[in-house]
Amino acid sequence: MLHITLPDGSVRQVEAGSTGYDLAASISEGLARNALAVKVNGEIRDLHRPLTADATLEILTWNDAGGKQAYWHSSAHLMAEALEALYPGVKLAIGPAIENGFYYDVDLGEGRTISSDDFPAIEKKMLELAKNKSKFERREVPKAEAVAYFTDKQDPYKLELIDGLEDGNITFYTQGNFTDLCRGPHIPDTGPIKAAKIMNVAGAYWRGDEKNKQLTRLYGITFPKAKDLTEYLEKLEEAKRRDHRKLGKELELFAFSEKVGAGLPLWLPKGTTLRERLEQFLRKAQVKAGYQPVVTPHIGAKELYVTSGHYEKYGADSFQPIKTPNPGEEFFLKPMNCPHHCEIYRTKPRSYRDLPVRLAEFGTVYRYEQSGELHGLTRVRGFTQDDAHIFCRPDQVKEEFQKVIDLVLYVFKALGFTDFTAQISLRDPENKTKYIGTDENWALAESAIQESTAEKGLATVTELGEAAFYGPKLDFMVRDALGRRWQLGTIQVDYNLPERFDLEYVTPENTRARPVMIHRAPFGSLERFVAVLIEHTAGNFPLWLSPEQFIVLPISDKFADYAHEVKAKLEAAELRGTVDVRDERIGRKIRDAEIAKTPYLLIVGEKEAQDGLVSVRRHGEGDIGSMPIDAFVKSVNSQIAEAMG
Amino acid sequence: MLHITLPDGSVRQVEAGSTGYDLAASISEGLARNALAVKVNGEIRDLHRPLTADATLEILTWNDAGGKQAYWHSSAHLMAEALEALYPGVKLAIGPAIENGFYYDVDLGEGRTISSDDFPAIEKKMLELAKNKSKFERREVPKAEAVAYFTDKQDPYKLELIDGLEDGNITFYTQGNFTDLCRGPHIPDTGPIKAAKIMNVAGAYWRGDEKNKQLTRLYGITFPKAKDLTEYLEKLEEAKRRDHRKLGKELELFAFSEKVGAGLPLWLPKGTTLRERLEQFLRKAQVKAGYQPVVTPHIGAKELYVTSGHYEKYGADSFQPIKTPNPGEEFFLKPMNCPHHCEIYRTKPRSYRDLPVRLAEFGTVYRYEQSGELHGLTRVRGFTQDDAHIFCRPDQVKEEFQKVIDLVLYVFKALGFTDFTAQISLRDPENKTKYIGTDENWALAESAIQESTAEKGLATVTELGEAAFYGPKLDFMVRDALGRRWQLGTIQVDYNLPERFDLEYVTPENTRARPVMIHRAPFGSLERFVAVLIEHTAGNFPLWLSPEQFIVLPISDKFADYAHEVKAKLEAAELRGTVDVRDERIGRKIRDAEIAKTPYLLIVGEKEAQDGLVSVRRHGEGDIGSMPIDAFVKSVNSQIAEAMG
Repeated sequence: MLHITLPDGSVRQVEAGSTGYDLAASISEGLARNALAVKVNGEIRDLHRPLTADATLEILTWNDAGGKQAYWHSSAHLMAEALEALYPGVKLAIGPAIENGFYYDVDLGEGRTISSDDFPAIEKKMLELAKNKSKFERREVPKAEAVAYFTDKQDPYKLELIDGLEDGNITFYTQGNFTDLCRGPHIPDTGPIKAAKIMNVAGAYWRGDEKNKQLTRLYGITFPKAKDLTEYLEKLEEAKRRDHRKLGKELELFAFSEKVGAGLPLWLPKGTTLRERLEQFLRKAQVKAGYQPVVTPHIGAKELYVTSGHYEKYGADSFQPIKTPNPGEEFFLKPMNCPHHCEIYRTKPRSYRDLPVRLAEFGTVYRYEQSGELHGLTRVRGFTQDDAHIFCRPDQVKEEFQKVIDLVLYVFKALGFTDFTAQISLRDPENKTKYIGTDENWALAESAIQESTAEKGLATVTELGEAAFYGPKLDFMVRDALGRRWQLGTIQVDYNLPERFDLEYVTPENTRARPVMIHRAPFGSLERFVAVLIEHTAGNFPLWLSPEQFIVLPISDKFADYAHEVKAKLEAAELRGTVDVRDERIGRKIRDAEIAKTPYLLIVGEKEAQDGLVSVRRHGEGDIGSMPIDAFVKSVNSQIAEAMG
Repeated sequence: MLHITLPDGSVRQVEAGSTGYDLAASISEGLARNALAVKVNGEIRDLHRPLTADATLEILTWNDAGGKQAYWHSSAHLMAEALEALYPGVKLAIGPAIENGFYYDVDLGEGRTISSDDFPAIEKKMLELAKNKSKFERREVPKAEAVAYFTDKQDPYKLELIDGLEDGNITFYTQGNFTDLCRGPHIPDTGPIKAAKIMNVAGAYWRGDEKNKQLTRLYGITFPKAKDLTEYLEKLEEAKRRDHRKLGKELELFAFSEKVGAGLPLWLPKGTTLRERLEQFLRKAQVKAGYQPVVTPHIGAKELYVTSGHYEKYGADSFQPIKTPNPGEEFFLKPMNCPHHCEIYRTKPRSYRDLPVRLAEFGTVYRYEQSGELHGLTRVRGFTQDDAHIFCRPDQVKEEFQKVIDLVLYVFKALGFTDFTAQISLRDPENKTKYIGTDENWALAESAIQESTAEKGLATVTELGEAAFYGPKLDFMVRDALGRRWQLGTIQVDYNLPERFDLEYVTPENTRARPVMIHRAPFGSLERFVAVLIEHTAGNFPLWLSPEQFIVLPISDKFADYAHEVKAKLEAAELRGTVDVRDERIGRKIRDAEIAKTPYLLIVGEKEAQDGLVSVRRHGEGDIGSMPIDAFVKSVNSQIAEAMG
């Protein structure tokens, strides 16, 4: 009898030689039906492979990453089987599962190509074959037999692969009429593959070497339900439509210039207006929460970073120091704002009564990234943190931490992010040398985060080894409208910089003590946050954030004066917008304003001008009737007030 | 007969040998009485020196810089005369006029010193001698005679000076019993010296060389009226009290840190609040005036500055380039915002209908200054320009220019600067190679400024050779409460950057044309502007700008709750302030708040808490009675509204 430990810690006794499937069936019939593979001692294996020793075991279904991996790997074999049927003599190279689906590199043979026109036939053949519910059968094969098999098939790629393998270590998998050299694992049979889509065709060099022959790489994806495929394709389309780089250009929010430099965004007027709204919103919330604004330079002398400890972490992969006419003098672009804020703390003596001191700055920082890693606003070389540093007494840490959590939640709510999780990043207890600071301080900091989040009732996951070098942290990951996760806000406890900067306060007993520092940024970076917001909202920003909240559309030149009058009244009420004065038909003006995603279109003609009205269209909703200007202002302002809590 | 041309262009005929005094007398008796010297063909001379040829001539009085210079130079001789009387055997080195007054370097002889205790006696002796109205008599002296005279006086310094002079080129001046080696010029006699003050005593090496003997340098100043001296000394005291470095520290507006680096200000919370108000004020005015906000990075790639032409102007005296891991890649700290804004202009095609495009940014720029030249916030290495660039059609230049002038005047008014002049800086027509751009473009730009200011009715002075390398400009100089002049706002026409960046717009004829660029910054730099504002207001900022507009002072702990209630109500009305919760007597609280220059002190006790009142003290005015909270808010808000026009 074997002892099999399940993920919940329970142990089952099974006979040696029984399979993962047997175990699943002993738990529930549904689990057995949905099981795709098993994870045995951390290794993914075929569901029907016999168990031979005590082990930990997890049943994998479509809902597990490992289950999907086996499923898509098996789908790659299914696609290969279909290709052999449709393109006799095709030679196969390699066919792995990837993050979304799978691919297979194939050599179609002289003169044959595949284009998107051919995709439907391949998909059809795959589903036809899948219906046979052919089992994926695993077989260990002597090297000589493997060589013989592929020599017979005249497949030079498989032969080259076998050449690199050791005898006794070679396995074949067979489903239906198709056999492949393969380490596995696979799902039990082709039955669960109910929907298939060939996504793309591209060239790929054999073994990634451009000196080798170029093969045809065919990307595909499969699903257990047709509905899943439809949803996946829709989401993909939607993600393309929402790509912040595309919308950023279309909505004229930001741009890049080669001369200014890659990864250094230029904020265009509309993007700047949006950004200013975000800043103003947070500035106001922060003043209410007792933060004090500061402004510090974007460079700091070498001494600052020697003190902070950043200097020794600088390397050849960073922006290099800025020398000056004064020999030995060096400045650095600031990679973070904390050292500057420590120096502000030091500008005067602090008493226990003065704490917490909460210094906030929209601080632009610069960090070098390889140009290949740059991506729109999410990966840049210069970005603005909505940064603040709280200097408090040790007995205030938890309370301050909780206040910051409140602020972060308030910000997320006002911006329409309702789905988020929090990750607690602790030190890797196995590798303490990576981190600055004493064990005692780390223990204090880590328990402060854990207790604060627990008392706040926040759902968290804890990751060891993910802490910053100067302290543990709490990161907020939001899920956007497409279900994708983004890391945004961060709160970090830091017992180290106060030590390095020799920060002090006078205690009630008139002795000196170290304040604790909390770094925090609800947005994280304005650039990244705006990118996420664009993709989350598809550019339909909350009304209070919209760079242009309204556009007045006179139906003809005759009503241009009245249109400007409307605009002036709305501006006096602190709303933002323009007049479309172009000599275009009203239909065209409406269409263009809808494309620009302007929240309110105010159409004005004879009747409106006469009675002081505006005919209102809401973006995405259409006509909502005509009303007096004041009524429109009132309605808009009450919407904004509600949204901002 | 000689032809003498006066400053108004009129020509007078006088006999050869007549003097400047004769000419002054022929104009008016008053002018002759006040005349101190003359400027003949640009050279300052004694009033009584005979004219020998046709010349341009200007009569100099106390109101002319040249008049003061002769007056203070003569006062240096008078002080020397007094010193000879009081310290027999004193040896004299040199004694020039300086910006405010004069000094004389003297060798008192072994064992003798002068301290401030001795100043009154010297001043007394000077005035006693001045009353003699001794004439300053000029005499050309053969070198041998000069050597004999100072050998006799045993003065090694004068002998060394004479040694360096050519025979035939040596003059003596004598007043009363005192004769000095001197080139002149001097005032006619000692009569006008009616008030004298020895300001300071310091050490100074003979000929500024520390290998030479250290002499005693005595600084003094004199005036034609006792009242002028009193005013001067008061102003000096006041300037010390208002020094923005002193007030910046006391009012906790900004600080410097050695670790961050000299010349890189850290804006403390109160300074940041002030700065944010200034920005918000201008941002609002700019939105109204059709500006669009943008945000650009603080660095730019080398290519940007090669294009702009700044690259070739970089040198060993600048911040050096920032290298990266990518060989050959270089970034520069931005020394100005214009190149970035040009790149924003280029992000999309522009039509003649889209112009003017007005891009505004509070852009922080960095320029290296030698540490010895740094001074508080007025001379720094990093500063934020209230920058904007207007891209317009040539036919819009004048109108845009005038709109900018309107904006600058609006800003000055709201900030309490009523006294200013404007300087038009044109190209040096003798040295055109210093400047980028064609003659034609310069002519266009210069006439645009001259016409705009003329049509606007602005009082201007025109300076040749003071233009920026890329175009002519208009600078605004304000006069502060102490009568000192500061250069602040600037407006510059630029026909060059549009050329270098190949900026274009599509004309009505569907051809391409170059926009004209106008650079402008009403404050100039926020740092410099705040420095001037601190010294102008002595830290008593306009109410709308005050970092803390009120402080609530509970007369005892019992009324702390009510005090916080008052604060909450005022904050809800968007006023800024705090509560003094210290366990101090009310007298102390009032005194501290007065020192902090908080505009409104709101004292609350039994009666106020009962009736919902505040007892109001206005800084510098004292008690102005008690009133309901709402009435206070209303009064403050109407003051602010009025101040901001």
